Amino acid sequence: MTTVTPETLRGFQDLLPADMIARTTVIDDIRRVFESYGFVPLDSPVLESLPVLVGTGGEETNKLIFELESPEGQKIGMRFDLTVPFARLLAQYPEELKLPFRRYHVGPVFRADDPSPSSGRFRQFTQFDIDAAGSDSPAVDAEIVAAMRDALAALGLIGGQDFIIRVNSRRLVDALLHKLGVTDPEIHKHVLRVVDKLEKVGTDEVLAELTVGRTDSSGDEIRGVGLSAEQAQGVLDFVTAPTTTRAETLDYLRGELEDAEGGKEALEEMTILADALNGLGVSEDEAVILSSLTRGLDYYTGPVFEAVLVNAGVGSVMGGGRYDDLVTRFADKRVPATGASIGLDRLITGLERLGKLQRSGSIARVLVVTVPGVDLTESVKLAAELRAAGIPTEVYLGEADAKLSDQLAHANIRNIPIAVVIGPDELEAGTVAVKNLGLGHELRKEIESRDEYREAGRAAQVTVPRADLVAVVLDLIQDGR
Amino acid sequence: MTTVTPETLRGFQDLLPADMIARTTVIDDIRRVFESYGFVPLDSPVLESLPVLVGTGGEETNKLIFELESPEGQKIGMRFDLTVPFARLLAQYPEELKLPFRRYHVGPVFRADDPSPSSGRFRQFTQFDIDAAGSDSPAVDAEIVAAMRDALAALGLIGGQDFIIRVNSRRLVDALLHKLGVTDPEIHKHVLRVVDKLEKVGTDEVLAELTVGRTDSSGDEIRGVGLSAEQAQGVLDFVTAPTTTRAETLDYLRGELEDAEGGKEALEEMTILADALNGLGVSEDEAVILSSLTRGLDYYTGPVFEAVLVNAGVGSVMGGGRYDDLVTRFADKRVPATGASIGLDRLITGLERLGKLQRSGSIARVLVVTVPGVDLTESVKLAAELRAAGIPTEVYLGEADAKLSDQLAHANIRNIPIAVVIGPDELEAGTVAVKNLGLGHELRKEIESRDEYREAGRAAQVTVPRADLVAVVLDLIQDGR
Repeated sequence: MTTVTPETLRGFQDLLPADMIARTTVIDDIRRVFESYGFVPLDSPVLESLPVLVGTGGEETNKLIFELESPEGQKIGMRFDLTVPFARLLAQYPEELKLPFRRYHVGPVFRADDPSPSSGRFRQFTQFDIDAAGSDSPAVDAEIVAAMRDALAALGLIGGQDFIIRVNSRRLVDALLHKLGVTDPEIHKHVLRVVDKLEKVGTDEVLAELTVGRTDSSGDEIRGVGLSAEQAQGVLDFVTAPTTTRAETLDYLRGELEDAEGGKEALEEMTILADALNGLGVSEDEAVILSSLTRGLDYYTGPVFEAVLVNAGVGSVMGGGRYDDLVTRFADKRVPATGASIGLDRLITGLERLGKLQRSGSIARVLVVTVPGVDLTESVKLAAELRAAGIPTEVYLGEADAKLSDQLAHANIRNIPIAVVIGPDELEAGTVAVKNLGLGHELRKEIESRDEYREAGRAAQVTVPRADLVAVVLDLIQDGR
Repeated sequence: MTTVTPETLRGFQDLLPADMIARTTVIDDIRRVFESYGFVPLDSPVLESLPVLVGTGGEETNKLIFELESPEGQKIGMRFDLTVPFARLLAQYPEELKLPFRRYHVGPVFRADDPSPSSGRFRQFTQFDIDAAGSDSPAVDAEIVAAMRDALAALGLIGGQDFIIRVNSRRLVDALLHKLGVTDPEIHKHVLRVVDKLEKVGTDEVLAELTVGRTDSSGDEIRGVGLSAEQAQGVLDFVTAPTTTRAETLDYLRGELEDAEGGKEALEEMTILADALNGLGVSEDEAVILSSLTRGLDYYTGPVFEAVLVNAGVGSVMGGGRYDDLVTRFADKRVPATGASIGLDRLITGLERLGKLQRSGSIARVLVVTVPGVDLTESVKLAAELRAAGIPTEVYLGEADAKLSDQLAHANIRNIPIAVVIGPDELEAGTVAVKNLGLGHELRKEIESRDEYREAGRAAQVTVPRADLVAVVLDLIQDGR
């Protein structure tokens, strides 16, 4: 038999137990927060008909779709986010998903992108989304931001210190452009895309692209927006204005935009959003208004938001915004909607770098050791008794002649704190040996010399009547906490 | 803008909130059981390089792989089960996944099959697998069966009444074939595939196929195994022998196979398995030995098992077996392994038909009603207070002028038992109105006339000082339990 090389596809990742246990905990924590806001779970297939996906995220996104064919020859794509499927569902099930409707969705999405595992960018990655449909009110956008704040806080991250949420509205930039005499909505979109890159490329490049364009490192010409030097400078000044408190930033924006076309509406939107953030207890440290924030996707229509981890080198771990026109793509009606998405892989990379990832790696609390010459049935019986008492228990079932030391090493690797042994002597005497591998922490504290350690090591094993096994193990688990 | 028809691909399914809430509960329940056996979670990509997948499940399975290409032009397939990826991981990470190793994995798998939603068969479906690698002992197979029994029991299913687990070993059939003078291993495999269809096609067809073959309904000849009439009858008699207790079935098997080539080993294997099942408290009602069970996949090498729901019309909801040679495909070594897979979609269809699916559909416990003329900030503030006290709370954020009755209907659809109202009067008085939509069950018991109902309906609303809100709601939730 020829062997096939066991390898993971480029840009994809295997999640081994320590990773997965941590990830499962993170997902459970986030889920609990989202449920506390009344979001309900929803799921849709990984595959969608290609027309459902194409064009929704903009030209750049189209290129990133993994394509395939159904057995009937239908063109299929793998979803690149969870927002487009949500818009499809809203259009397809108006009765079941009666508005207003808020849901959460966690699942894999796929982009045929250039992967960069070190910054947590993969071709398959997990998004954890919340979205709320059916209301125009910026109070909903504030609820999304507050839920994201609570989710990050539930993971032990501190606002202002570990994370910052940035909030803005595309309408503010639109109003500014009107004030500067730029009216073509296509040019507005182009400006938003260029401004989105500010943090990455710097002010010089943004100025160049806002006017006639620039030449990139490989000598290719990048098409510019075509603004005048004065207009471009006006945009740059606006998006780089110093950010202070939300109230002060609003004052500044009022001064700039009150009289511009669309300015009043944009300012009112942002004022309601800021008030609701205050009402929801989102502090100034946790969320700031940042005028340069526009987010890349074409379908956003108003408020946008993102969360960045400070000093974790992973960029934004949450992004979102309002997309009032996306459902119109699938149904002849307007359904206002807003939401945000956590990039779980980046978030976990970031948590790890900040030392905030719980990596206990333990599931079983007891390992039942198997002893040559003793029927395995005896070991599984003990395990069944322990499990019936609610104690997660593994039976060592490996090589038939595995040594005791190998079995205890196995427990050690898996952070299993207790071992139970039934050998020929114990079987004969109706007893069982219980080893406290971690030792109770009380005990550990008292150990100060090597002799004491040896003493404690012996004391850490007790032989008890079989009938007492469950009670003894429960005691040990209690002590170990 | 042309609208795109919102539709789900053929053979795929959307899971709306009521489905998803039920499914999440089922997954959590099963997960807890698997963790109690010391299984740890693992995850791998939905996509694998095509050579990893092709050929592992047999010719039939190859045809069912959804294929695509990476941006680099590499051939990729969507995984059709979670067992083949597990074998890859065992070969790829020998240090991290030190043997013995047991893991669980829940995730979507894909087959370009002929879908049949009514019997729970989809092109994308969720499998929930447990596998244990590193031991030859049939005691591990027994642990797999016991964990599956516990998982089904945790969902409220009763062994013998709602489900039966069938256990067998392919080696028993092998021994029988040797006794009948059939020695070619390829013919053995063919016999196993034919016998696997017994329940579906009946004894006449199986007899026909075991000998020279038969003509199917469309007139095509199906190639037969080529056994003599006597050999075929010998196989049929063996696999249709009446099933009684495990001990009696073992006695029968001993009589038939003790002297056959490989019979001793097969009988010893099944005896250890049966003993371990007894040790694990798996009753005769819960698991039977069924000689006709062979399971379809080519990679099984010894014990096989499946669970069927009685009277649910969904066929088997769990299947598995030992596959000692699968890892050899990816590494130059033998890693004994065994495991089983729950077909979650079929299981949930079955649970629903048996009336065992919890469909509470509720996430939020409180709806904060919004009142025109009162700032939304007031409503979100109340919600933030309730959430901080651990009470899942939704703010009604829909049409700006939604009537109170529409908002209460919204709560009703979502099974939200409590509504909180802050109108202009309450705002002025520093109070808040709390409506018990479900009524406490104490209260409900007392209502016997329409007048009483009206009375209670009024009593079900209280106006309280704002500072008392959280305490009052907590009391109501307590009463409602």
